Amino acid sequence: MSSAPFDSVSHNDLANAIRALSMDAVEAAKSGHPGMPMGMADVATVLWTKFLKFDAKRPDWADRDRFVLSAGHGSMLLYSLLHLTGFEDMTLDQLKRFRQLGSITAGHPEYGMAKGIEMTTGPLGQGIATAVGMALAERILNARFGDGLVDHFTYVIASDGDLQEGVSHEAASLAGHLGLKKLIVLWDDNRISIDGPTDLSFTDDTLARFRAYGWEVRTVDGHDPAQIETAIEYCKTTDAPSLIACRTTIGYGAPTKANTAGSHGSPLGATEIEGARKNLNWPHPAFHVPDEILLAWRDAGSRGAPAADAWEQRLAAAETDISAAFEKALKGDIPAEVVAAVNELKKKISEAKPSAATRVSSGNALDALVPLLPEMMGGSADLTGSNNTRAKGAGALKKGDFSGRYIHYGVREHGMAAAMNGMALHGGVIPFSGTFLTFSDYCRPAIRLAALMKQRVVFVMTHDSIGLGEDGPTHQPVEHMAALRAIPNLLVFRPADAVEVAECWLLALQSKDRPSVMALTRQNLPTLRDQHTEENLSAKGAYVLREAAAGPRKVTLLATGSEVAIAAEAREKLEAMGIGTALVSMPSWELFAEQPAGYRAQVLGRGTVRIGVEAMVRLGWDRWLGEDGAFIGMPGFGESGPYQELYKHFGITADAIVQAAKARV
Amino acid sequence: MSSAPFDSVSHNDLANAIRALSMDAVEAAKSGHPGMPMGMADVATVLWTKFLKFDAKRPDWADRDRFVLSAGHGSMLLYSLLHLTGFEDMTLDQLKRFRQLGSITAGHPEYGMAKGIEMTTGPLGQGIATAVGMALAERILNARFGDGLVDHFTYVIASDGDLQEGVSHEAASLAGHLGLKKLIVLWDDNRISIDGPTDLSFTDDTLARFRAYGWEVRTVDGHDPAQIETAIEYCKTTDAPSLIACRTTIGYGAPTKANTAGSHGSPLGATEIEGARKNLNWPHPAFHVPDEILLAWRDAGSRGAPAADAWEQRLAAAETDISAAFEKALKGDIPAEVVAAVNELKKKISEAKPSAATRVSSGNALDALVPLLPEMMGGSADLTGSNNTRAKGAGALKKGDFSGRYIHYGVREHGMAAAMNGMALHGGVIPFSGTFLTFSDYCRPAIRLAALMKQRVVFVMTHDSIGLGEDGPTHQPVEHMAALRAIPNLLVFRPADAVEVAECWLLALQSKDRPSVMALTRQNLPTLRDQHTEENLSAKGAYVLREAAAGPRKVTLLATGSEVAIAAEAREKLEAMGIGTALVSMPSWELFAEQPAGYRAQVLGRGTVRIGVEAMVRLGWDRWLGEDGAFIGMPGFGESGPYQELYKHFGITADAIVQAAKARV
Repeated sequence: MSSAPFDSVSHNDLANAIRALSMDAVEAAKSGHPGMPMGMADVATVLWTKFLKFDAKRPDWADRDRFVLSAGHGSMLLYSLLHLTGFEDMTLDQLKRFRQLGSITAGHPEYGMAKGIEMTTGPLGQGIATAVGMALAERILNARFGDGLVDHFTYVIASDGDLQEGVSHEAASLAGHLGLKKLIVLWDDNRISIDGPTDLSFTDDTLARFRAYGWEVRTVDGHDPAQIETAIEYCKTTDAPSLIACRTTIGYGAPTKANTAGSHGSPLGATEIEGARKNLNWPHPAFHVPDEILLAWRDAGSRGAPAADAWEQRLAAAETDISAAFEKALKGDIPAEVVAAVNELKKKISEAKPSAATRVSSGNALDALVPLLPEMMGGSADLTGSNNTRAKGAGALKKGDFSGRYIHYGVREHGMAAAMNGMALHGGVIPFSGTFLTFSDYCRPAIRLAALMKQRVVFVMTHDSIGLGEDGPTHQPVEHMAALRAIPNLLVFRPADAVEVAECWLLALQSKDRPSVMALTRQNLPTLRDQHTEENLSAKGAYVLREAAAGPRKVTLLATGSEVAIAAEAREKLEAMGIGTALVSMPSWELFAEQPAGYRAQVLGRGTVRIGVEAMVRLGWDRWLGEDGAFIGMPGFGESGPYQELYKHFGITADAIVQAAKARV
Repeated sequence: MSSAPFDSVSHNDLANAIRALSMDAVEAAKSGHPGMPMGMADVATVLWTKFLKFDAKRPDWADRDRFVLSAGHGSMLLYSLLHLTGFEDMTLDQLKRFRQLGSITAGHPEYGMAKGIEMTTGPLGQGIATAVGMALAERILNARFGDGLVDHFTYVIASDGDLQEGVSHEAASLAGHLGLKKLIVLWDDNRISIDGPTDLSFTDDTLARFRAYGWEVRTVDGHDPAQIETAIEYCKTTDAPSLIACRTTIGYGAPTKANTAGSHGSPLGATEIEGARKNLNWPHPAFHVPDEILLAWRDAGSRGAPAADAWEQRLAAAETDISAAFEKALKGDIPAEVVAAVNELKKKISEAKPSAATRVSSGNALDALVPLLPEMMGGSADLTGSNNTRAKGAGALKKGDFSGRYIHYGVREHGMAAAMNGMALHGGVIPFSGTFLTFSDYCRPAIRLAALMKQRVVFVMTHDSIGLGEDGPTHQPVEHMAALRAIPNLLVFRPADAVEVAECWLLALQSKDRPSVMALTRQNLPTLRDQHTEENLSAKGAYVLREAAAGPRKVTLLATGSEVAIAAEAREKLEAMGIGTALVSMPSWELFAEQPAGYRAQVLGRGTVRIGVEAMVRLGWDRWLGEDGAFIGMPGFGESGPYQELYKHFGITADAIVQAAKARV
């Protein structure tokens, strides 16, 4: 056995502290998952006392190693580690309030609740996939700032369940492809799932599978610290990401529940805990860690202080432009020149009045923005030419050369979205990447996590309606705007023209604490914002684009994206009939909902005939239309055909709007 | 080269007919994907002329081999095959109207549009994952009815993109685990993706990966019919599912675009087509297939007739109870005794008035239903004890023994959902399976396809709100009801008590042309339906559970699931104050929306103070509440803590409802 930090404190003492705290906290909470922390305590102890580069007193140190507990249900493992190593927030009292409302020790680790929680985990597969993004961000920043400032590992503890989820396959395949050699995954190979032995449902040769992705693989006895140490040491030297299968016993120490599903997701109970204390030779009362052991752990928690000092000195000694750029990258503010560039672009568009698909306008906006913001990192799930996410001059990064500004994610929408979350969490990178809006469904669990973790990730989703035409109903989103609008803390933009595209991009970049979706068209749209203004009109979420002119406002047309132009045509016709009609563009419902009631009432025109127009299902629209409003949109799934015919077929036309209005005024 | 059906017609002639029709149709449509059909024409020709067991004149023959074009963008391959082999609907005129509104030749194959389209494909990964379900259904029915009635293969053509999607990994892992030996996947290994060479993003050792899943793998020159034939012949004899890597040239025959991304997703153009005709030695005009070649293809299309005859004779000769059971299974009607059993169960519940979680009530309903309906096949994504989807006495099926009525899907929600789609499409099986409601996000692309394909699949989604308590925001669905309600043709049930659970199960089973979601609680709920009635009150989607009694109705409380009990408590209080208050339970918005306007108005109580109560986000509720209604629900994501505290914390209480009502009456 390798030497422990204090001679008199053994590895077992250290590991058992984790086990004891975990089983005690779960018992106190009367709910939780003791089995995993008890099983992985040895592995975690070796990692945190011998390898993980961190300083508990400086949890935000930019070049710390990242640790992701992908198996988030084992949250007590992480909370124990944070407490033992001396993270200030993670008091013993917090461990005692595990899973209670208002504590920082939630059932699953929640990003932002405590320092040292690098991300929210719990939905299986997300941790490992997000960690791929962290490891990628590390390489990207390393390419930009060098070894002196960015040179750290990303460690993951993952469960069988993590490795069964499709998103982990996508992410592992991508990590192997990119040769993310500083990613090391410790697999809790305990062979127990909730339903029983894993071989009830899972008989992959997992090591062979990861080798096929291009990973290094190793197998260790997960209760033998020397083996664990040797394996991690080796994996740090390889040229590929590594998977270490740690053969463990779930609930290690529990007399009857160890190695059974019974220790997975329920408190062990008093008798079992008593037996475990005996088995582990841990005679101490609940929640009590003897001083000597605690001090040894605290020693481990400050192991990284000299390295952090040295790093701070390197940052201080760096050339001013480099250190400034590094700090700016980590801070992630959007500088004034970006706002100026957006205004310049808006002015040009208002003058030139192009007819263009909003995906193309988005590409143009990116051509202006990406050179100004070195943090921006584009990509696509194999739809580069369709998503227009590759800015002019942006080279693709690849294995061994991470200086490119563009990522070919492959046909891996879910892995891509999770990786983007990881890049945003890492800091120093503003990720944006594309697929078709209909495939937002494939990314949805990761989009949800971005929103929950308040991360600035921009999901570019083109081909945003039946306007994509012939590819038909599988490719035509009809319910996706509603489904995305349902996610709390997510900005869903659907700009109506090139000016709104530029405005929405600026809003997405300026929204440091929420992710954005940009829903963009395949088909051309006219420029409606033909009068330049520096004000970001999209910032209020909805605004009167054309006020009633023929007389007092009798009709209010509310539309988003490609349907604003159709509504504009209808407005012209209604005005020509003498019916005063206002046209409201609603690029973001979420921002509009945040406006004062008076502004909203004025825009919506309560008391006027209100008609919503969007080539989507109605769900959600009634909020803006009231009970007597009309809605022109999709009754259900789309069809395959040229898009102009589809709009007619589904009755999303200016004439249909005019008829609906006339029937109501 | 192997001998062609007609001596004078070569394999090349047959394959070139596919190539020519495909490039001509894409050209005529001015959109589509010629590269894949041209590349895979040789493989498809060998499969369809030498192996695929089918009879074009009897497309519904139950024991036909299933063919799934997972790479659905290559739809012209399938349409060409259906036309050439003589499927009646697939006329030359339909090929000429490829991708036009009203044709049966949609951009991607759409299930139900033409015979021979076994499923809707296009969203990558779904085809192969759904095919796993078809192959599984074949084994399940084989175990039940024997080789004489059920003994067929499932063939898939899959692309690189299919194999990159996480859902295909999950499905392949499951197929390997279950040893689905009658599944054969032909991988179009053309090494070209939309962005360029696949190695831009994808460098898996795919064969090694599939071996690690437990598959047989083979590699062939995808333009050498003899190699293809030998490989398929071999794979038919193995004890595992098989992957045949077919090394092909995308756009085979096109002079400059072959082997480039340029042939993937756009018409080739007149010059390129002219060159291809020369290269392929296919001098015939557009859309013209010489009689001799067409006849050879038609011959292939009737190859299976004798086998179909023999099968029909076996069915006719089978014992009456077996043939009747087989036909009943395929028809999928719900017999009267099931309705009677549900009524009996409802009566018992109304009398016993249990306090139970609806997931437990669902388990009880399944205990009654599953023995009566041998078609029902349960399962869970490793949450058996939580989802309560394993009926009493249902054994788990496993490799080599498919007689079990329960499937351990592993932690593979997406693969599970797709496999369920495949079982429903195959026929003879009514699949239902569970996970947590929050993980409906993981299955969403497959749920959407179930709705689009009008398949009876029941997605059991337990732990349906903050009522799950301590697991916290990652596990607490708040937006998922809205997101699911947005999907057209999907029934989303959220029953309020055990009686509604039984009613909703019956409705889900009786809905032969749409999938259902059952959102069920973890926490106990009282029995509200304490007066037995044979009428299925849930069938109308919403109904007045308690009418105002204290006086004329002034307040209408609208609630679903676990919040109906809370609203019932509020109603008691309001009534006690003399405020006439009706309580409406809304187990299914979709069914309610289909009721006549008069019924809806009566239930909703237009003109009364309306308050919606649901522990979810508000999106969608305004439709029922009108502009002045109130909503008691979730403002955003949840928290970790005991559920009773969470309900108080978020103000979802009877008192909050009473206050909201009093402020408005």
